[in-house]
Amino acid sequence: MIKVGIVGYGNLGKGVTLAVSKASDMECVGIFTRRDPSALNPIVNYPVYSMEKLGAFKGEIDVLLLCGGSATDLPNNTANLLKDFNTVDSFDTHAKIPEYYDKLEKVAKENGTLSAISIGWDPGVFSIARMLFGAVLPDGNDYTFWGKGVSQGHSDAIRRIEGVKNAIQYTIPKEEALSAVRSGQNPKLSTRDKHLRECFVAVDDGVDKSAIEKAIKEMPNYFADYDTIVNFVSEEEVRSMQQKLSHGGFVFRSGNTTKENAHLLELSLKLDSNPELTGSVLVAYGRAVAKMAKEGKTGVVTVFDVPIKYLSPLTNEDLRKTLL
Amino acid sequence: MIKVGIVGYGNLGKGVTLAVSKASDMECVGIFTRRDPSALNPIVNYPVYSMEKLGAFKGEIDVLLLCGGSATDLPNNTANLLKDFNTVDSFDTHAKIPEYYDKLEKVAKENGTLSAISIGWDPGVFSIARMLFGAVLPDGNDYTFWGKGVSQGHSDAIRRIEGVKNAIQYTIPKEEALSAVRSGQNPKLSTRDKHLRECFVAVDDGVDKSAIEKAIKEMPNYFADYDTIVNFVSEEEVRSMQQKLSHGGFVFRSGNTTKENAHLLELSLKLDSNPELTGSVLVAYGRAVAKMAKEGKTGVVTVFDVPIKYLSPLTNEDLRKTLL
Repeated sequence: MIKVGIVGYGNLGKGVTLAVSKASDMECVGIFTRRDPSALNPIVNYPVYSMEKLGAFKGEIDVLLLCGGSATDLPNNTANLLKDFNTVDSFDTHAKIPEYYDKLEKVAKENGTLSAISIGWDPGVFSIARMLFGAVLPDGNDYTFWGKGVSQGHSDAIRRIEGVKNAIQYTIPKEEALSAVRSGQNPKLSTRDKHLRECFVAVDDGVDKSAIEKAIKEMPNYFADYDTIVNFVSEEEVRSMQQKLSHGGFVFRSGNTTKENAHLLELSLKLDSNPELTGSVLVAYGRAVAKMAKEGKTGVVTVFDVPIKYLSPLTNEDLRKTLL
Repeated sequence: MIKVGIVGYGNLGKGVTLAVSKASDMECVGIFTRRDPSALNPIVNYPVYSMEKLGAFKGEIDVLLLCGGSATDLPNNTANLLKDFNTVDSFDTHAKIPEYYDKLEKVAKENGTLSAISIGWDPGVFSIARMLFGAVLPDGNDYTFWGKGVSQGHSDAIRRIEGVKNAIQYTIPKEEALSAVRSGQNPKLSTRDKHLRECFVAVDDGVDKSAIEKAIKEMPNYFADYDTIVNFVSEEEVRSMQQKLSHGGFVFRSGNTTKENAHLLELSLKLDSNPELTGSVLVAYGRAVAKMAKEGKTGVVTVFDVPIKYLSPLTNEDLRKTLL
C-alpha cells in the first residue's frame, strides 16, 4: 500500500480525499490542516491533524498530496515540505513554473526527495496532449479552449470593483471558433474570437449599474480584449452558482503531412467538478511519485517526464495485455 | 542529428519517409527494401539500398524505423534486426503483443539495443488515452470507436469469397452510440451497437449477387455480429476508393468521482491518411528511442514506458516554458 498525506482541505483537498478513497492501492495517513483539526469534517473518515504534527510523520508517508493554491501556499510551503517528503502539487502560475522548478529541483536533489509539479488537467493532461500532438504533427497549429467554467481570477477582479457585493465569471469557448478549428480550416483566432466572458454580478442597492458594467467590460487584461456579457442578479443567485464547480476544455492540433492530407487531433474534457477531477489527476501522479521514488528517482518532474505506466495500479504486463 | 534508416517502402514506409523529411533533427541514411532498389522512386530523394546492404550500416544508424506488416514481416524480421540496431515498429496484432514483447526483450537485453513496439495511433496514441484516462477516473467505463476508415482484414475476407474481384470495407462508428457515450449515459454497448460495416464489392459477370451478399453478412467473426451494408460497384470504383486512406476514431472515458459528479474525457482523431499519421507517430518515437538509447536504456518499451519529453526536438526547459 502507498501511504499518502493530504495537505490542505479546501475544494481541491476534498477532491483529493475522494480520489484517494477510490485508489485500491493507497491508504491515507492523515489530512493536515492549518485550521482547527476538530472543526474539519472530511468527506471520508480519515484522521485530521494540525500542520504542526506533519514533521512527526517523516518516514511514514510515501507522498504528500499538496492541495494549496498557487498564489501563496505552494510558493511558500512546497520547498520546505520537500526537505522531508516526496510531493505532488498543482502549481499553475504559468509564468513562474521555470523559477518554481529550479527552486524545488535544488531542494529535492539536496534531500533525496521527488516532487511532481504542475499536475492537474491544465497544466497536466492538456499539456500531455499539446506535447504529444505537436511531436506527431510538427507542421500544424495548436488551439486550446477552456470552459464552460468559472475563472476564479476574473471573478475576483469583478469583486474588487466598488459597489459589487459578489460576482462569478464564466469563460465560454465560442462555437464558431470551435467549428472553424474542427473543420480543419486552421483559422487565425484572436483572443476575442476564441472565448466569451459571461459575468453574474450582485451589487449594492442604488449603485449605477451601467457604470459597473462599463468598468467590467473595459477592464484591461481581464475583459477589454473579450466580448463580455454582464448580468445583474441577486446575491443568492451568485452564491448558488458558486456551488457548481463544473469546467472543461479542448486541445486541438490541426495540421498536414502533405499538402493534400490534413489531420485533426482533439482532446476534450467535460467536468462536473473541476476540483474533483484535478484531485483525481493529482492522486494518479501521487502513485507515480511513490513508485519512482522507491526506484531511487529524485528531483522535480512534470507530466513530460513521468512514463504513464506509473499512474496505474496495474502491472506492466497487465497494461500491455489490456490497454495497449 | 539523429540518423535513421527506413525499412520497407509500402504505404507506411512512404508515410514515415514524409515524416522524417519534416523532422529538423533527423537525417535519413537510407531506405532499405527487398525490391529492386533502382525500381523504387521514393517521395523524398533519400538513397535506396537493398536489404542485404543494411548490415554494412551497423554503428551508423541510431534507429531503424520498421515499416513492415504485423502478419509476417515484423514477427519474422524484428528480432534479427534488433541484434545490430535500435528499432521502432507498429506491431498491432493485439493478442500476440506479450509474446512479441518477450521475444524481443531477450534479444535487446543480450545485444544492448532498444526497441519501441506497437507504435502508431492504435495501439499507440489511443493506448495512452485509455491508460491515462483510466488512471485518472478509475470509477468509469472505456469506449473505443474506430472509423470511418478502411479495415484491411475485412476487405481481404470479402476478396476471398468466390466470384468477388475486388472489395473494400469501411468501419463506421454509429452516431447513436457516440451520442449516448457523449451524453454521459454510460451505455452498455454490444458489438452491433458500436460499429456499422459498409462494403463495396466488385464481382464477376453473371454471379449470384444475393448469394455473395449473404456470404458476407453471415461470415462469422468478421460480419455476423454487425449490421452490414453491401453495395455492388464496378472494379474501377473499388480501385478509386482504395486510393483514399483516411481513418479516425475516438477514445472515451466516462465516469464519476461522486454519485452526483460525472466526467467525460475524449480523444478523437480525424485522419486524411492513416499511413501518414501512423508514420508520423513512428518517427516521433524513433526520436525517443535514439535519445533513450544514447542514455544507455536497453530492452523493449511501449508508449506506456516512454516519458513523452523524448518525443519532442525541444529541450526540457523549452517544453516546460511553452507547452506545460
